[in-house]
Amino acid sequence: MVDDSVAAAIVTIMVIPQSLAYALLAGLPPEVGLYAGMVPPILYAMFGTSGALAVGPVAVVSLMTAATVGEFAQTGSAAYLDVALALALISGLMLALMGVLRLGFLANFLSHPVISGFVTASGLLIAASQLKTLLGVGGGGHTLPEMLHSLWRELPGTNLITLGSGVVTVAFLFWVRQGLKPLLKQVGFSARAADLGAKMGPVAAIVVTTLASAWLDWSAQGVKVVGSIPQGLPPLTMPSWNPALWQQLLLPALLISIVGFVESVSVGQTLAARRRQRIEPNQELVALGAANVGAAFTGGYPVSGGFSRSVVNFDAGARTPGAGLMTGVGLLLAALLLTPWLVALPLATLAATIVVAVLALVDVGTMVRTWRYSRADFAALMVTLLATLLVGVEIGLVMGVVVSLLMYLARTSQPHIAEVGQVPGTEHFRNVLRHQVLTHPALLSLRVDESLYFANARALEDRINEAVAQRPALQHVVLQCSAINDVDASALESLESIAHRLQEAGIRLHLSEVKGPVMDRLQRSDFVTNLSGQVFLTHYQAVQALTPQ
Amino acid sequence: MVDDSVAAAIVTIMVIPQSLAYALLAGLPPEVGLYAGMVPPILYAMFGTSGALAVGPVAVVSLMTAATVGEFAQTGSAAYLDVALALALISGLMLALMGVLRLGFLANFLSHPVISGFVTASGLLIAASQLKTLLGVGGGGHTLPEMLHSLWRELPGTNLITLGSGVVTVAFLFWVRQGLKPLLKQVGFSARAADLGAKMGPVAAIVVTTLASAWLDWSAQGVKVVGSIPQGLPPLTMPSWNPALWQQLLLPALLISIVGFVESVSVGQTLAARRRQRIEPNQELVALGAANVGAAFTGGYPVSGGFSRSVVNFDAGARTPGAGLMTGVGLLLAALLLTPWLVALPLATLAATIVVAVLALVDVGTMVRTWRYSRADFAALMVTLLATLLVGVEIGLVMGVVVSLLMYLARTSQPHIAEVGQVPGTEHFRNVLRHQVLTHPALLSLRVDESLYFANARALEDRINEAVAQRPALQHVVLQCSAINDVDASALESLESIAHRLQEAGIRLHLSEVKGPVMDRLQRSDFVTNLSGQVFLTHYQAVQALTPQ
Repeated sequence: MVDDSVAAAIVTIMVIPQSLAYALLAGLPPEVGLYAGMVPPILYAMFGTSGALAVGPVAVVSLMTAATVGEFAQTGSAAYLDVALALALISGLMLALMGVLRLGFLANFLSHPVISGFVTASGLLIAASQLKTLLGVGGGGHTLPEMLHSLWRELPGTNLITLGSGVVTVAFLFWVRQGLKPLLKQVGFSARAADLGAKMGPVAAIVVTTLASAWLDWSAQGVKVVGSIPQGLPPLTMPSWNPALWQQLLLPALLISIVGFVESVSVGQTLAARRRQRIEPNQELVALGAANVGAAFTGGYPVSGGFSRSVVNFDAGARTPGAGLMTGVGLLLAALLLTPWLVALPLATLAATIVVAVLALVDVGTMVRTWRYSRADFAALMVTLLATLLVGVEIGLVMGVVVSLLMYLARTSQPHIAEVGQVPGTEHFRNVLRHQVLTHPALLSLRVDESLYFANARALEDRINEAVAQRPALQHVVLQCSAINDVDASALESLESIAHRLQEAGIRLHLSEVKGPVMDRLQRSDFVTNLSGQVFLTHYQAVQALTPQ
Repeated sequence: MVDDSVAAAIVTIMVIPQSLAYALLAGLPPEVGLYAGMVPPILYAMFGTSGALAVGPVAVVSLMTAATVGEFAQTGSAAYLDVALALALISGLMLALMGVLRLGFLANFLSHPVISGFVTASGLLIAASQLKTLLGVGGGGHTLPEMLHSLWRELPGTNLITLGSGVVTVAFLFWVRQGLKPLLKQVGFSARAADLGAKMGPVAAIVVTTLASAWLDWSAQGVKVVGSIPQGLPPLTMPSWNPALWQQLLLPALLISIVGFVESVSVGQTLAARRRQRIEPNQELVALGAANVGAAFTGGYPVSGGFSRSVVNFDAGARTPGAGLMTGVGLLLAALLLTPWLVALPLATLAATIVVAVLALVDVGTMVRTWRYSRADFAALMVTLLATLLVGVEIGLVMGVVVSLLMYLARTSQPHIAEVGQVPGTEHFRNVLRHQVLTHPALLSLRVDESLYFANARALEDRINEAVAQRPALQHVVLQCSAINDVDASALESLESIAHRLQEAGIRLHLSEVKGPVMDRLQRSDFVTNLSGQVFLTHYQAVQALTPQ
């Protein structure tokens, strides 16, 4: 309990600038970010299974919110907030429904390279979107070319004080990240305390620039500031129920839900595992759903479990969802007491905190490692990254999923089929192309390194047809089935037609090392009883039985 | 050469009624069926690799043509023929392009249960579409409910002579199939000759009913007859180049191309294998593409390699594509010389030949076998069958493909992961749930029966998290990797995070029996060097090394 309160206090201080900044990123008034951090973590605490996950506004979901809502309403209009509330409500209902229907596994179809490409692109897009605020100009756009083009046109209107304070803040925040932590450790702080100290950098930047702005009256010199924020409890809001709007929001809400869920679950699992605990993904869906529904009715916008705030929460000692509850209360107090002090806060300071925070999302290391590990995975990553940057966040994500699924299907549809021969003096069989092994002209041994299903069944047929056409002396074909985990009805039919054609050509088909579940299934058909050859327990037995000694 | 000419003569006689009938099924004038049987087989003979495949109008493609073209033009109008020509051209260009790009493997994504459900539904739809002709009434519709509803309304207009001659013809044709063949064998014909004799049933039915119709002047009594057919060479036609039309025809043309290709290739492969030959699927695509482009410019409509005509061709002795060439010439002569004799041919006779031919497509045996073998495959079959019957041929086929892919992904995303233990006194390891085996409280042995990829990587994480949470004494986790054929970048990351979490909990992760290609790939990452445990050649060695003896 004491641990939880300390953690809540630290997280509250850290998330105040984040909440204001992410709301601006989403195109919403800054106080909406505070509201989204109050009721949602309390609702998450009631349903969630992670003791450390901190729920509230997060960068990527804020970007996706801006991209979606921007299509329906003008930034700053009342309609804009209405659409954001509807988006939170639909997303919340979807999450809860997915949890009740136990559809949490759907998130697995976002592969890591797709997530990595998407998050990197989001980081770049978010940083680019903040450049206009750092320059103190207008502009917009939802793709990188649009943003850069609009920025180029607005460049002459740059406000030099805004730019100067922004650049200094960015430099300061980078120094806090890179330089302050070692310094704190040097002067005797523990590693954890140094880490937490460094995380307070944005708070310091806000205090200093707000004081400077108030003192020197920057606002009068064209510097955009937060201005007066309504003080008090979050408003009770009623999201729009317009069915046409709901229909158009279904796909964006689904994507926001899945991205938010994936981020929450991966953070939650990582933190839970450190204490040998588990989280229950389907229950997490229900909890995130409740949090988003709560956001929709209390003036918020779509929320999720944030990475940085959760890690801070964990490191500060949060052990139960009670810490999240207290963070919600903390933000509520902040909204009641602190907001009058933020009037003079320059928007450029918030933009600077966003830029520094999201550049950590740009993950070049993963790109390099993926390139080295697998070209196919790298291609999925780059398709997602480029489509997200150049076409849009929703299309980018959908393209990533589709491309990675197609590549998986393409790969499994062309299975590795090795002709194997006996390693002399052993009972082992290895690929004839890689090893010096014994083979027989009358016997062909093939090892199929993939489950057989409709998309690859014909590849096996082709391979056997080809081998048969090349070997006039062939009498036996033996399939080594140790890596075949399943045989579907199409593959069964292919096996039957292979067996039939081989029989017409006077060749017998045998199987070896068939797995238990596969054999169980094959025995539900006539295949084994009609087989011209035999089923052998080991491939060695098959070769012993079928070749002259 | 002599073999080929005999085969060509037999096939020509057999396909004349088929060609007329399928053209009517496609909603086209009967002579279009003859035209589609002339130039396309000649072009196929120039490019194709099968010596026995007979190309021309086929039932399922004719049905799909009717369903597609019917959406753009009125049956019997000049526009209808224009759209059919454009469909043949687009389909031909797509097929040729797919062949050049070596995309023949795409056809593998039509699983056997989907094809079976689609073909059965097509057979039922085609038979239902002919009922109106057998009754001598009008009507239409492209789904089973539409057809039956329109038939019900038209029922009072039934022409009794039409119905009578139709029913007698259907009965005769069934008798030819079931009764004549044994009879011919009994009186001394060879099995093959009896078979070919029985295939001439439709020709006999046409001769008899045409003579009866001419003699008794059925046409004057309201019986619909073929009427005068233009005599002569196929016309040179120019398909429509309307871009809006082309765009709308893209998806239907793709589906027709794939269905036609799948039918051709499966027939071609079956026949080629009987002679220990092979066909080259990508070259077949080019040949079918040329045949369809040819059909588009010579008054035809989409064609494909037909099952029944190819089997007749093969059984009659066709050995080279020359037989197809001569069939084309034979039909040309038939169009020149025979058409005046067909004026009085009742349409009901053609409808009867179609009904009897397509009911052979209804394949209850496969449905029963699929049900017994795999509920998932059966579900894919039924979805395709019902969607095709009730919604339409295009949607039915697309739904079948989507459902079967989703089910494959769902299955591989929840892999079989068995905890294994040592069979006492052996070096073998088996599932602890199925066998009496030895296990150790400090060591967990898991065998994963699926390649690891993004959709199932988290399932392994969950399984290990669960096991770790249950076993306080756990010190070692060993993954037996004999059935893992691939590890993609997402799965690698999952393995890394599993290893990391286990390490934080003081547990070491080991691998055993990793395949060569998988090991090659893992070594491109840091995973193996960072691994807290070891990689063992066999699972037995792992357990020996990690447990106290």
